[in-house]
Amino acid sequence: MNRPLTVAARAQVPPFAVMDILARVAELREAGRNVVSLCAGEPGGGAPSGVSAAAAAIHGAGTPLTYTPALGISELRDAIAGHYRRWYGLDIPARNVAVTTGSSGAFLLAFLSAFNAGDRVALARPGYPAYKNILRALGIEVVELDCGPDTRFQPTPAQLDAAVRDHGPLSGLVLASPANPTGTMVSREELAALAAWCAGNAARLISDEIYHGITYPAAGDPDPRGVCAWEMDRCGVVISSFSKYWGMTGWRLGWALVPDDLIGTVDALAGNVALCPPAPAQMAAVAAFSPESYAEADAAVAEFARTRAFVLANLGRLGWAGAAPADGAFYLYAGLGAAMDRFADSAAYCSALLEAAGVAVVPGLDFDTVGGGRTVRLSFAAGYDAVREGVERIAAFQRPGA
Amino acid sequence: MNRPLTVAARAQVPPFAVMDILARVAELREAGRNVVSLCAGEPGGGAPSGVSAAAAAIHGAGTPLTYTPALGISELRDAIAGHYRRWYGLDIPARNVAVTTGSSGAFLLAFLSAFNAGDRVALARPGYPAYKNILRALGIEVVELDCGPDTRFQPTPAQLDAAVRDHGPLSGLVLASPANPTGTMVSREELAALAAWCAGNAARLISDEIYHGITYPAAGDPDPRGVCAWEMDRCGVVISSFSKYWGMTGWRLGWALVPDDLIGTVDALAGNVALCPPAPAQMAAVAAFSPESYAEADAAVAEFARTRAFVLANLGRLGWAGAAPADGAFYLYAGLGAAMDRFADSAAYCSALLEAAGVAVVPGLDFDTVGGGRTVRLSFAAGYDAVREGVERIAAFQRPGA
Repeated sequence: MNRPLTVAARAQVPPFAVMDILARVAELREAGRNVVSLCAGEPGGGAPSGVSAAAAAIHGAGTPLTYTPALGISELRDAIAGHYRRWYGLDIPARNVAVTTGSSGAFLLAFLSAFNAGDRVALARPGYPAYKNILRALGIEVVELDCGPDTRFQPTPAQLDAAVRDHGPLSGLVLASPANPTGTMVSREELAALAAWCAGNAARLISDEIYHGITYPAAGDPDPRGVCAWEMDRCGVVISSFSKYWGMTGWRLGWALVPDDLIGTVDALAGNVALCPPAPAQMAAVAAFSPESYAEADAAVAEFARTRAFVLANLGRLGWAGAAPADGAFYLYAGLGAAMDRFADSAAYCSALLEAAGVAVVPGLDFDTVGGGRTVRLSFAAGYDAVREGVERIAAFQRPGA
Repeated sequence: MNRPLTVAARAQVPPFAVMDILARVAELREAGRNVVSLCAGEPGGGAPSGVSAAAAAIHGAGTPLTYTPALGISELRDAIAGHYRRWYGLDIPARNVAVTTGSSGAFLLAFLSAFNAGDRVALARPGYPAYKNILRALGIEVVELDCGPDTRFQPTPAQLDAAVRDHGPLSGLVLASPANPTGTMVSREELAALAAWCAGNAARLISDEIYHGITYPAAGDPDPRGVCAWEMDRCGVVISSFSKYWGMTGWRLGWALVPDDLIGTVDALAGNVALCPPAPAQMAAVAAFSPESYAEADAAVAEFARTRAFVLANLGRLGWAGAAPADGAFYLYAGLGAAMDRFADSAAYCSALLEAAGVAVVPGLDFDTVGGGRTVRLSFAAGYDAVREGVERIAAFQRPGA
């Protein structure tokens, strides 16, 4: 070859600090070490049994699985619309429901269809890193909002006003409630204020609701599953998934509620970019909306709640400081407090914790390139026993002089 | 809302003429009309039985299906590497094999990682419309090469030289062999010349080989499955799929061979854009490489060959003109010839054919916005009986005075 070929600058994704941790976990386990990994952001229990049974039946019958409509089979779009009636009392036309290849597929379609290259989109820091990596790959300018404990790590209209003053008009806001890595949620009033800000500033709200249902409401909470952005107005895009509440991460099936002004664009784009979401998963996922499947998923959430209660009760022993309120999802995001006296940053802390105590957690750097050098994320999706063992080990590791 | 929100200009995909045809097919069928649809670009026979059985077993056991590595499970990457030894005598390291969510997922990753916004990429006209629609959505400039029967509808180095003179340097070339809609293939010598041109011009070759194996070689053809671009050099990206040869369209599973200089970028990008390809499909697809699965797939190809022979033997009765040589895939792309005296364009022809004769074919306009007003694509994936009935009806429709 005469000249080197291009590797696109826009496609360069910063490496994740957790990758070194995960590689070392694999090495240690290969060497026979008992390692407790509290890194993974996915439930291990698998799909509801009715969904697995439906998938087994589809494949057992050798059903030819051809392309479906780009936005999914109508039976599943109807079932998802029914889910919004059940959880939120919302009456959503099935034509506004787009089934997608995981929530990842929904983010891609939403970002491509709602934002042009050069547009400016705001999101919270700390936050899920794929948002900004996808946005940047698509040529969209990311404006990070510095969200700390005073706003429960969530953005506010005042921050958005400040962002406009500092950077210029915003075309969109990515909001996640419950959020990853913090688990914090916005209240109905907070979401209403953010939606109103977007409406008043011609900004498109992209509302990540994939952790809805994995929530720990107080008795009598009027919004026990989370508040859906479409309860405010139907201008934004709501994104959700079968991955978390129903435990179907590897199936790659999600959906979006797409407003009238975008649905035609999203439909045509999806047909070109993805053709359709996986057909067997679509057919089987209809069974996720049966009473039995909801009951199984709620049982998994109850187990997360038990594990979360254990973690919160033992927060003092962890020696961490400034833990975010884990309103939902299955994460504890915390500052490392006094432990930081002994380590250069969270990556060094996580590495030492893994070597000395055999516990893996994610360095905060992956979620927050500014303040994440002093924070970690512990996932309690691994289950009660693993988390209890992990907490004991961390407590021992943290003891002064340990 | 105070101002209308943005709907991104870059995401605007031109509507497909076939959509009107397909909608009318559904209406006519609902009204009880017997319609022969020769539109679909997908085999109807389904996956090899061993793949379906493997999927049924995975789901029947209730296996938790969590995220896999972004580029797929190692067992499948190894099996795909083995496929290149089997068909092409190529020894490809599994680390260069990226499993993707259909070939669609592979195109997205290849285009994002190999081309920056503003880069210029060439492709043949007529061609598969999603290439240019994805490229444009990503801000890449598409240079269409006018490819006619004199070059078997495939691009040549001379055309690429001319394109550089007219438009400026090219960053890439998308090549499809067998092509959609024409079915034509490039020879080993032609592919070598195109790969050499790319190497000499710092252009990345993106080689769409999803129809490999659905080929109709003469006895003794040294390249009966098609020629793989990596037989020339390993600078470009080869894209393939389980959809066509193995009949697994709805499963959404494909792959790419990714050169060393891109694989790290593609890996990181895939983790952000897609997380991973569907896990159950990945696990089941390992069985696609068993001798039994190859035998079943080859039996389906033999049936396509029988249908193709029938179509070619009856070409004269169709009254069309200038049919492309259907070297591979399952399409006949033809000019409408004298029939165009009676119709404004191919969309009008297809509409009249559907109404009068109950046969649906795709207007060439979807593949060629310049010359496609006078062409159609007939898919013989629908099977021998459907195609025979379709050809009889078209012949009757075409008879002078009919």
